Amino acid sequence: MSDHPTNLMHVQRLGVLTQHELIVLVHADCPVCRSEGMSAHSQVTITHGDNSIIATLYQVTEDWLPVGTVGLADLAWERLGVEAGDTVRITHAPPLMSLGFVRQRIFDDGLNEAQIREIVTDIVRGAYSDIHLTAFVTATAAKPLSTREVISLTRAMIDTGDRIDWGVTPVADKHCVGGLPANRTTPIVVSIAAANGLLIPKTSSRAITSPAGTADTMETLTRVDLNRDELRKVIQTEGGCFIWGDAVDFSPADTAIIRVERALNFDSAGSMVASVLSKKIAAGATHVVIDIPVGPTAKIRNRAQARDLADLFTTVASTFGLALRIEVSDGSQPIGRGIGPALEARDVVNVLKRAPNAPQDLREKSLTLAGAVLELTEKAGTGEGLAIATETLDSGRAWDKFLAICKAQGGVFDPPVAKFQRPVNATRSGRVAAIDNHRLARVAKLAGAPDDKAAGLDLHVRIGDAVRQGTPLYTLHTESIGELTYVLDYVKSNPDIIELTR
Amino acid sequence: MSDHPTNLMHVQRLGVLTQHELIVLVHADCPVCRSEGMSAHSQVTITHGDNSIIATLYQVTEDWLPVGTVGLADLAWERLGVEAGDTVRITHAPPLMSLGFVRQRIFDDGLNEAQIREIVTDIVRGAYSDIHLTAFVTATAAKPLSTREVISLTRAMIDTGDRIDWGVTPVADKHCVGGLPANRTTPIVVSIAAANGLLIPKTSSRAITSPAGTADTMETLTRVDLNRDELRKVIQTEGGCFIWGDAVDFSPADTAIIRVERALNFDSAGSMVASVLSKKIAAGATHVVIDIPVGPTAKIRNRAQARDLADLFTTVASTFGLALRIEVSDGSQPIGRGIGPALEARDVVNVLKRAPNAPQDLREKSLTLAGAVLELTEKAGTGEGLAIATETLDSGRAWDKFLAICKAQGGVFDPPVAKFQRPVNATRSGRVAAIDNHRLARVAKLAGAPDDKAAGLDLHVRIGDAVRQGTPLYTLHTESIGELTYVLDYVKSNPDIIELTR
Repeated sequence: MSDHPTNLMHVQRLGVLTQHELIVLVHADCPVCRSEGMSAHSQVTITHGDNSIIATLYQVTEDWLPVGTVGLADLAWERLGVEAGDTVRITHAPPLMSLGFVRQRIFDDGLNEAQIREIVTDIVRGAYSDIHLTAFVTATAAKPLSTREVISLTRAMIDTGDRIDWGVTPVADKHCVGGLPANRTTPIVVSIAAANGLLIPKTSSRAITSPAGTADTMETLTRVDLNRDELRKVIQTEGGCFIWGDAVDFSPADTAIIRVERALNFDSAGSMVASVLSKKIAAGATHVVIDIPVGPTAKIRNRAQARDLADLFTTVASTFGLALRIEVSDGSQPIGRGIGPALEARDVVNVLKRAPNAPQDLREKSLTLAGAVLELTEKAGTGEGLAIATETLDSGRAWDKFLAICKAQGGVFDPPVAKFQRPVNATRSGRVAAIDNHRLARVAKLAGAPDDKAAGLDLHVRIGDAVRQGTPLYTLHTESIGELTYVLDYVKSNPDIIELTR
Repeated sequence: MSDHPTNLMHVQRLGVLTQHELIVLVHADCPVCRSEGMSAHSQVTITHGDNSIIATLYQVTEDWLPVGTVGLADLAWERLGVEAGDTVRITHAPPLMSLGFVRQRIFDDGLNEAQIREIVTDIVRGAYSDIHLTAFVTATAAKPLSTREVISLTRAMIDTGDRIDWGVTPVADKHCVGGLPANRTTPIVVSIAAANGLLIPKTSSRAITSPAGTADTMETLTRVDLNRDELRKVIQTEGGCFIWGDAVDFSPADTAIIRVERALNFDSAGSMVASVLSKKIAAGATHVVIDIPVGPTAKIRNRAQARDLADLFTTVASTFGLALRIEVSDGSQPIGRGIGPALEARDVVNVLKRAPNAPQDLREKSLTLAGAVLELTEKAGTGEGLAIATETLDSGRAWDKFLAICKAQGGVFDPPVAKFQRPVNATRSGRVAAIDNHRLARVAKLAGAPDDKAAGLDLHVRIGDAVRQGTPLYTLHTESIGELTYVLDYVKSNPDIIELTR
């Protein structure tokens, strides 16, 4: 890499928000463009002291950015840790040798541990563009990862992040493979487990393909972007937490992969298992309960698929010495009423407060999973978990623990309420035969969830309910007329999302 | 889509070069961000009169961009055709329904004609991000396109571009599937064919995975970015041309797909056949010669692969009524001496001028292919093509035609010469046993080709040659010390690119 003085440039903060993208601008007349042969769209390495990033460089031809200055978008500015007046070094990004392994995975063979580690390492250092990342993610979805590859991917993800050791055992965790809208059991399970003295440092993701993830939901009730020191403090005082995993970054490779999966609206079994288990292990968990909902429009369609996934989870977990319990559950319809961050938060609170209108299905499923956690960690004898979980909830101890955790995380907020609410009514009378989870999730997303916290929908019926023509099946919640228009268009052309028999 | 006044904004040209990306900036305080629920990284539709683009919107928090103004990068500015003071409308990009077909292609079945057409239409209207495009490209590489899918893709690509009808037949064309560095036969074949009165409106691509495409090479000798009217004029006066295909945009979907393939450094058989044939058909060709070089380090490794590819080309071509002739050629080593745009241009000129130092292999292969074109179009009887081609070249008529075409395209330039030249010498004596096309191409690319026109390398040996220790095997050409350093690092760790026996 050349270290000519033309590679040294002054920084300027552009004040541009780019979400995940690292973007920098330089004037086209800067000597660095010539000396390094940089084009109008180059990948460059920018170094400041010990920090370095790989960014996309665009050229500026107007004079609002002076020659000799590099303009940084906010994320690039923060990652480099620069201040006004600082100087950085710009060079070509190094060639991406691991891309050969991605091509090999597409056209030829599977990958060995060293090859997967090299790919993951390059992803973590930011060397993979969206194109490179997507090729890896798509190849391992179209031609699924072998069990050995999943183990290698899990190990590489753990090793490229920072691992926490709590110094005790058991350390509990739970995860749902998803595909079911709402189904927000985590805050209830964590509250019950922690109220029984368990350590359960649960980190949650934002929505990948759904209208809300637990992190999106809990963000309407408390602060979730805690750093590692704050996480430790919350766990040490309360035993449990509801935090956003990305903020503690247990698996930075996974964060990048999930961003691509979110844009494509899928995740494949192998990448899901590696993603889930790497984060649990990095967070120090020793005992994990996995919920697999099965239903015709859930992520897992039938018992055979559930068994395959359970086997993969079990094999990979045992490689890393993790105790695992799989709970296969009913995935034929959403669990709870609200779909969308704030609406789901309201349901969680109602269950924990034992409100008369609390959704019973969410209560029952949460108790089952909490019972499984208590039994797996031997806080309850076999067959006694459900009773202890129920007592913890009904006595109010779970609600007290929930509030204590929220306070420890930074306070208890009121979830927002959407500006616009519009019922979608039954066009005829009948009985609810089926609910399409996929398209119902799509409705909530078109309504604005999860970006608009208050957006989504409230489901008023469950399978088997009798409905009369003109009564509401669900109510849309949106924050803008624009989104209400989009979602109503979709609802009108999809009248069978909730299927009625006569 | 909402049409509230907050969606209307004044344009400002940012003077930012982004190559292919459509980027716009708005101040975070603009009402449109709130009314439309736009985040720090949204896909938006921007409309100005009849023009509309789908762009990535980033938010600005500093005051250098006023509230109420949308800042456009140069490409967005040009595509919209706006001028200072104009007003545009900004709305959410519509939901991408065809993405469901991409997921289907990854996880389940092949796609039917209507599904492929919907994907291609969305690609052409700019609705696919790099992530979406890459998922489609990778899925159809990992699980290859069926013959039916290739036909559907070809048809969709033709139908989403503009087709030229020359009103005569035959209209000739030629194409090489590539994988062989240098091998720059096109300008010679076109000159010979046109000198024999053939219409050969040949469009060429820039490099996809190689150190130079014909468009990159010819750009060092003449103007290649002609528009359709200019193309027509050149063909009507001279019969042939050497122009860059993207400038006339016969297959805009293909342009986007190739950009992704370039970043990943691969192209799959199905996508290649659809890409090549859709462009030939859209350019009005009726008779096409396809060159398939076969060699251990060429794109096509063996005769069986070549046969499969030839079958696919033949089946798809016949569906569209295209006359096709396949020429399988020796792909064990580069054809010609120079590798890189300007160095290949020099070889082409030397062959056409019948210079004493012209590379014989390039001359012979070009004559074979020109003969095949003459025979396929019945400008020569069977078995007479080569003799007529040779006479055309040796008489100087091909060189005259070449100069005439260049002049019609905008003049004849002198190819540039690189600033730095450094020989790579044999570390021992021996005989050349093999040449690794792949890694030799990589050397030329690390030297700066094709972005630096003069960069690349000059190959001094061919398979079978005896070399003495210390004599040059090839000479590196670079425009910067930085690139020379990169490439020398690579060369040192790859001493066996040119393999010697004792």
